[in-house]
Amino acid sequence: MGFLRSEGVVYKPVDELDDNDEVYISPIVTAPRLAGFLVKLFVWFLECRIIGTIIVYFLKKDNLIHKLVSYAELEESPVYVPLHPSEDPPEQEVRCTKSNNPCERVHEVLECLPSTSSGSISSETNPWFRRRTIMDYSEAYKSGVMTPSMVAERFIRAVELSSNPKCNMAFFISCDAKNILEQAAESTLRHARGEPLSVLDGVPIAIKDEIDCVPYPTTGGTKWLHRFRTCKNDACCVERLRSCGALLIGKTNMHELGAGTSGINPHYGVTRNPYDTSRITGGSSSGSAAVVSAGLCPVALGVDGGGSVRMPAALCGVVGFKPTFGRVPHTGVLPLNWTVGMVGILSGTVEDALITYAAISGQHLLDRPTVLAPKVKLPLLNPKTSIGDIKLAKYGKWFDDCHADIKLSCYRALDKLRNCYGWETMEVTIPEIEAMRLAHYITIGSECTAALDHLRQKFDSAELGWDARVALSIYSAFDGMEYIKAQKVRNRQMHFYNKIFSRADVIVTPTTGVTAYQIKNDALETGELDYINGAAMVRYQIAGNFLGLPAVTVPIGYDEAGLPIGLQFIGKPWAEATLIHIASAVQALCILDYKKPAVFYDLFNSV
Amino acid sequence: MGFLRSEGVVYKPVDELDDNDEVYISPIVTAPRLAGFLVKLFVWFLECRIIGTIIVYFLKKDNLIHKLVSYAELEESPVYVPLHPSEDPPEQEVRCTKSNNPCERVHEVLECLPSTSSGSISSETNPWFRRRTIMDYSEAYKSGVMTPSMVAERFIRAVELSSNPKCNMAFFISCDAKNILEQAAESTLRHARGEPLSVLDGVPIAIKDEIDCVPYPTTGGTKWLHRFRTCKNDACCVERLRSCGALLIGKTNMHELGAGTSGINPHYGVTRNPYDTSRITGGSSSGSAAVVSAGLCPVALGVDGGGSVRMPAALCGVVGFKPTFGRVPHTGVLPLNWTVGMVGILSGTVEDALITYAAISGQHLLDRPTVLAPKVKLPLLNPKTSIGDIKLAKYGKWFDDCHADIKLSCYRALDKLRNCYGWETMEVTIPEIEAMRLAHYITIGSECTAALDHLRQKFDSAELGWDARVALSIYSAFDGMEYIKAQKVRNRQMHFYNKIFSRADVIVTPTTGVTAYQIKNDALETGELDYINGAAMVRYQIAGNFLGLPAVTVPIGYDEAGLPIGLQFIGKPWAEATLIHIASAVQALCILDYKKPAVFYDLFNSV
Repeated sequence: MGFLRSEGVVYKPVDELDDNDEVYISPIVTAPRLAGFLVKLFVWFLECRIIGTIIVYFLKKDNLIHKLVSYAELEESPVYVPLHPSEDPPEQEVRCTKSNNPCERVHEVLECLPSTSSGSISSETNPWFRRRTIMDYSEAYKSGVMTPSMVAERFIRAVELSSNPKCNMAFFISCDAKNILEQAAESTLRHARGEPLSVLDGVPIAIKDEIDCVPYPTTGGTKWLHRFRTCKNDACCVERLRSCGALLIGKTNMHELGAGTSGINPHYGVTRNPYDTSRITGGSSSGSAAVVSAGLCPVALGVDGGGSVRMPAALCGVVGFKPTFGRVPHTGVLPLNWTVGMVGILSGTVEDALITYAAISGQHLLDRPTVLAPKVKLPLLNPKTSIGDIKLAKYGKWFDDCHADIKLSCYRALDKLRNCYGWETMEVTIPEIEAMRLAHYITIGSECTAALDHLRQKFDSAELGWDARVALSIYSAFDGMEYIKAQKVRNRQMHFYNKIFSRADVIVTPTTGVTAYQIKNDALETGELDYINGAAMVRYQIAGNFLGLPAVTVPIGYDEAGLPIGLQFIGKPWAEATLIHIASAVQALCILDYKKPAVFYDLFNSV
Repeated sequence: MGFLRSEGVVYKPVDELDDNDEVYISPIVTAPRLAGFLVKLFVWFLECRIIGTIIVYFLKKDNLIHKLVSYAELEESPVYVPLHPSEDPPEQEVRCTKSNNPCERVHEVLECLPSTSSGSISSETNPWFRRRTIMDYSEAYKSGVMTPSMVAERFIRAVELSSNPKCNMAFFISCDAKNILEQAAESTLRHARGEPLSVLDGVPIAIKDEIDCVPYPTTGGTKWLHRFRTCKNDACCVERLRSCGALLIGKTNMHELGAGTSGINPHYGVTRNPYDTSRITGGSSSGSAAVVSAGLCPVALGVDGGGSVRMPAALCGVVGFKPTFGRVPHTGVLPLNWTVGMVGILSGTVEDALITYAAISGQHLLDRPTVLAPKVKLPLLNPKTSIGDIKLAKYGKWFDDCHADIKLSCYRALDKLRNCYGWETMEVTIPEIEAMRLAHYITIGSECTAALDHLRQKFDSAELGWDARVALSIYSAFDGMEYIKAQKVRNRQMHFYNKIFSRADVIVTPTTGVTAYQIKNDALETGELDYINGAAMVRYQIAGNFLGLPAVTVPIGYDEAGLPIGLQFIGKPWAEATLIHIASAVQALCILDYKKPAVFYDLFNSV
């Protein structure tokens, strides 16, 4: 290190810190956008032993990794796993299920659906746009208006339409029509007998291609990973959905290895935003967000290691819900990291996220041994009866660091919450946001390197996309000390958030700093390195992953170009019930303004 | 990595492993003993940027770090903190204290002392050798035969004697006569008033110089650390002892930064073994073991990050007890690592370890946030009534991989346990012992690097001892991926040990593979690199640290040269009570054969 060594920050111990110590830094990302030939050239340099080492050194230095993490002085102990004491926090009107059976839990949760749910707004004569919900499907099957087989056929037709060269949505990586029709036929029979397994029986649900789902390979968005890791069984969360009768409609597209936020995949195509097909969806759960947005299914599963569920949900105008770290078993999810990723839910409505959450959450015998999750909670939601209960925390400088349209929309939503429910927003300070972003990057990078290392000898780098090659090169550049210091930053941040949560119920932020941006032609083959848009995308995401906090994004409006905007709520550990409660209340205020995407399929009518 | 990259092992998933897969490898350490000029030369090469990188590469390769950890393929998730579910395991006849007050806990524990305790063997007319116990002190003070002030004076005189050039024991790094006399005077007053704080009031206790104890600096065995980290308060464990009235008699010598096992400290002198002053004590808690062995105090505190309490205890013929990870608060202990180290107790008898354990253990508000320790347990011990309860597990190939005298002595002890108590030993297999040793090395190395990094710019390397310089150079050579893979090895080992503990109460091993070896002259100034003796020393230590398991060593005999031999028991997580129970039973069988060290001070008589 010696002669090249740069200066590290000396952090004050958390107890001695006061709000005046904090200066909000909007990250000054010093890396130009690269795509096409320039990306290839950059990769070539980066993968050279000596030059690559020097480039990475300057990337780490210029992006403040050295200053804020590597060479920083931190008194705190490292906290390696964002695992909170596994006691349910006191939440008002919250009910815990005692059942280990997903069907029973789904049945129980129906009694807890908030007042904004399908009952009051299901009439097809409503002039405003709404996506079909789980209850819409369930009721249509029950009444015999539709059958799962009809839905399956329409779905397959819609996927064909969306895949034609003119539309080219690139929603799915794998989607086996025969398998879907077989599942649908069985579900149709169950409905015909009047014996559906649950309200999810026959309801189409898509799965991110990072989660095992028979009979598909799990590619992780790559061309090679499935050659070395066979998908033999459903992941635990998928198995639970299947046991509820869900119609599993295929594996959605994703950013390669989850190592980017744009959703531009050079192997399986760029997933396009249903609201504007010239725009990105965001990622990495790009396909899962897009299929829900486009009406192909009410729910999809994603994985969120750095906002990968919430960002595309916001950009595609759907709900994105990431439970507390450890709440959903990770058995059968690609182990690309161990301490930041969580299965998350993308859905058209908050209620559908809740029903799905009831199905997939809860501890599992084969789960990560360090994770001891409390029992599942099913929230009893009724925004009307609970008005006045919620205290929102907001860090103004951070909140405002987003596109003007987003800011306007978010403030308008806060006003509505105050006016309709009396929920007040209090101003707080969250220190060292940029340090946490970098510490999270070191963590996810090192863990991804450890996860894939044994495969690096087995496949040709040329099989990787160019932007993934850049990511993997930088991911492997951290030493043990940097990894551990990143965990010290995690400790500090846990203090900061705990302090805020002692005064407020949730922290509110915009979900992203930008709305869906243009897909440029030079990025189609190589992907792109756009760290400036990337930083604006992940700006509000990291606490959910690095601190394991539950978080939800709800669509609240659109920018001038008609692109969706999301509002995010970050909750106390294990306090999913409060989050769903809040999200449902926000949705109730905004749902009448929801707009129909340019690409939309209504499976309730012939496609 | 590419062209130099060596082959990694492909580990079978733990569930698929059977005993036939395991081949015991006695570590083939490929590093010659170096001392004197050769160490200096080696340091010079090692600290050169290019040559150093190459040397470390080959050290890692030849010592199987690459093969067994760095490039190995491991399916398991990493487990970063050896934290076991914080529920007390069912233990027979165990009582949990409800008190948070150290004095009350010490008072309670007196009712739980095993039958081998002072009552039956305290008569001074016994012909055999025994060290003075806490109860001996307490009774002598109570009866007025002695006062703490008399003890303090004799102690100070003994330290002077031990420090003269002829003897040169180098027990202490700091020892302030004035402070000791003041403490003693206060204690004497309390006794005179008939109001001692507890049985520990006025009992001399020494503290390893890695633990904060006012008014001393905490050097960690270095010449510089205390310049950058001021000791302002007692460590939590010391504060608890002080609140019980303990006479804190100074800071004991240690291996520099705990980064070695010999106890040879170039700055403060080589702590010499009281049984043979030409021999090492073992380390790193060298002084703490030696002062107890030499009769200067019944109890001393140490810190055990890789056997640092148990090894010197065994080599100096005293009891060494390392509780479960998280059981004793680490507030005020030098943070040289976070996931392997634990405060431990060195004492003349098992009962004194128990009394001290009662005083210092239990959770603390300022404790490491990931550590949630259960409440303190005070074991009700009575070997006689519990005969036949204990199942010992032994891995024969590993157990036998020690010096012939040690092996003989250990088997003899097992025979006695069978004959006297009916405790049977069952044969088990513990896989991948060498992989765990290396994974632990990577872990403690990376954590130590992260702990000291911010100081590296502030002091001159020349202030470090030569062997510590070698250690720190190698410690910093691991990348984030290697650190994480080491934690995957931790996960595997937890599986292996849990499996054994489902059938057995404890695992029994020799404490060390060698007895105290000669101090060579060339090592006095530079320290020495003796990885062969080092590997034999730590052979049986790692599970206690890397898996956080409680462990205790009890003296059971002597080798042909009259040097002490220890037998180690490794217990289930949080099952300290069972361990103390067993240790007490072993002690009862061996205590009549205990020998007096060559250097011994009896503070009950004028020194």
